Amino acid sequence: MHTQVAIIGAGPAGLLLSQLLDLAGVDCVLLERRDRDYVEGRIRAGVLEQGTVDLLRAAQVADRLEREGLVHDGIELAFEGRRHRIDFADLTPGKAVTVYGQTEVTKDLINARIARGNPPVFEAEDVEVLDFDGERPRVRYRHNGAAKELSCDFIAGCDGFHGVCRASVPQDSLRIFERVYPFAWLGILTRTKPVSDELIYCRHDNGFALFSMRSPQVSRLYLQVRPDEDLNEWPDDRIWEELKLRVGPEAAAALETGPSFEKSVTPMRSFVAEPLRFGRLFLAGDAGHIVPPTGAKGLNLAAADIHYLSEALVAFYKENRQDLLDTYSDKCLRRIWKAERFSWWMTSLMHRFPGRNPFDDRIQLAELMYVADSRTASTALAENYVGLPYE
Amino acid sequence: MHTQVAIIGAGPAGLLLSQLLDLAGVDCVLLERRDRDYVEGRIRAGVLEQGTVDLLRAAQVADRLEREGLVHDGIELAFEGRRHRIDFADLTPGKAVTVYGQTEVTKDLINARIARGNPPVFEAEDVEVLDFDGERPRVRYRHNGAAKELSCDFIAGCDGFHGVCRASVPQDSLRIFERVYPFAWLGILTRTKPVSDELIYCRHDNGFALFSMRSPQVSRLYLQVRPDEDLNEWPDDRIWEELKLRVGPEAAAALETGPSFEKSVTPMRSFVAEPLRFGRLFLAGDAGHIVPPTGAKGLNLAAADIHYLSEALVAFYKENRQDLLDTYSDKCLRRIWKAERFSWWMTSLMHRFPGRNPFDDRIQLAELMYVADSRTASTALAENYVGLPYE
Repeated sequence: MHTQVAIIGAGPAGLLLSQLLDLAGVDCVLLERRDRDYVEGRIRAGVLEQGTVDLLRAAQVADRLEREGLVHDGIELAFEGRRHRIDFADLTPGKAVTVYGQTEVTKDLINARIARGNPPVFEAEDVEVLDFDGERPRVRYRHNGAAKELSCDFIAGCDGFHGVCRASVPQDSLRIFERVYPFAWLGILTRTKPVSDELIYCRHDNGFALFSMRSPQVSRLYLQVRPDEDLNEWPDDRIWEELKLRVGPEAAAALETGPSFEKSVTPMRSFVAEPLRFGRLFLAGDAGHIVPPTGAKGLNLAAADIHYLSEALVAFYKENRQDLLDTYSDKCLRRIWKAERFSWWMTSLMHRFPGRNPFDDRIQLAELMYVADSRTASTALAENYVGLPYE
Repeated sequence: MHTQVAIIGAGPAGLLLSQLLDLAGVDCVLLERRDRDYVEGRIRAGVLEQGTVDLLRAAQVADRLEREGLVHDGIELAFEGRRHRIDFADLTPGKAVTVYGQTEVTKDLINARIARGNPPVFEAEDVEVLDFDGERPRVRYRHNGAAKELSCDFIAGCDGFHGVCRASVPQDSLRIFERVYPFAWLGILTRTKPVSDELIYCRHDNGFALFSMRSPQVSRLYLQVRPDEDLNEWPDDRIWEELKLRVGPEAAAALETGPSFEKSVTPMRSFVAEPLRFGRLFLAGDAGHIVPPTGAKGLNLAAADIHYLSEALVAFYKENRQDLLDTYSDKCLRRIWKAERFSWWMTSLMHRFPGRNPFDDRIQLAELMYVADSRTASTALAENYVGLPYE
């Protein structure tokens, strides 16, 4: 069996690429190791830049997003008893983000793939990517107990941080840049009214907290915890108590509490692999880079990769152009490093770093105060949060 | 002998305070441990914010500064073969800095103190500051071999990082915040034409370099070196070679070289003592805080302290107001921490940190690229460099 583009991984990156290629008349097969329920059940980020929304619209999967997504014109920073609003509408100006769960984006994309008659191949096991340094790459996998082989022109590695694609690249061709943070996020989902219409990022001596949401009825709440934190030590009551403490008395008084229906710990890591292309294998999304969740850049960066990769593959098939494939890695990496910088900066700005020198703690507060007091510094945060323009 | 304000230390902070108090009719005595030649010979910073220039004008010591000072509307950042100009005139807008050596400011102030008949008491040895927690502070010292004692209403501690004033405060009343950087600046003065009309800040894999000047005929040049660097290992030829390498081939080709007439190594430190007031003792300038020289904030911060302190003392004597003395420390510290943040940031942005993780190196480059590509980020650098407004 032959296809033009074999896509590995049906997260948002792989699904979106598959949909965009299909719409442009490029033939592709999308292989996914897990089953559909698992893929649709993964809870991830939920803040979409305008560029991501535009891309989902171009992919014809934005109808529900436009109905149900919450457009946010700002965020709040809470620290030292202050609340400071970053007003995107005023500062960027006119730009906004849309709050809509990544899990919903995934469902919309899977439905669209099914509707167009080319759904992902779920439960494709033991995937191997082969010969991508030559003219004719191959993908081997097992499906329903049978050995399968797919020949293709290109392989898109959208299979995440732990996927096989990056792992299949000769390790001396890769440069890895990495930082692991000495903390994690404990996140819960609850059927409670969000305490504010906008996200609140809190810097507290006990650690960071984030008051976010999935809808006007569902809150998404996070606490900075130790990376090895035991969830059993965090019954809901303790989580609410700590959330109240970190957000400050005024917001705490207005906080509606209730049982959580999802609870998990997310480790915090910055990671970049260079380059993102090896012959006819292209890495996109978490397969090539990870950001800590502060600043909500993970899904948006994956979307930007797919923007460039779909454009490059379509130009190759429809206009016989090689150039966009050749510039893919560099173009993505320029954007990725800016987002890595922002995510690292916002993480550094808001979290408690255990064992840190008191001078560095004060610098953190001075930076927050500078952001709050300087329109220019607020604008710098805002322009990164809503998304730097595509090149 | 009694005076209203005893000022310890005839650096720019003490001299400026003495001049401003004198002009306002407040009686003061300025004691300095060193002789006049030593004080006038100290080579220090040379970039004045507009607020500092305005304060020197108010002190009636700006005539020569206005004739000889070089007004700079921008600086350049050099990295990875790029040159990026930060255009103050455009970005801040209309603001500028003035290049005029601190040593010249000191000479102008000493001449003004002599002209007004109240020069510093040079070579005041073994200074002790006493009883500043009560109503009647005293200063003991030796002068020309004789023991002296001065009673006063207030003591201004302008005697620098190693001075006696901060050291005389009970150590449990002080909080110290400090960071020592793992590098130093090797600086030279040369009678050569500056390579550019503006300062060039260079980030190079070998380390930071700065191309600065004192006049159109005198260059001031710096190289990042080890903190324990031996000056004997740095003959002029080696310095020029390294400067050329770090600034890049284009500027190197235009670089006029020549023998140095001053050569020294400056350690790099961030330091803040809190608070800046203890009863009737007030710390100002380096006695209370140190910044690394990147960003040129040291002298300007000292001037800001003196702006607030002179205002507070004059209000006390002329309007019987206590309030500005009470808010002195907090008001200064708000400004100081912002300048500490900027100096730390600019130091972190431009220097090579030995042993640093490759991820952090890339974040540094990403930050430089963000500064160069975003007008907002350039503006943030510019607004800090020209000086944030006084409160």
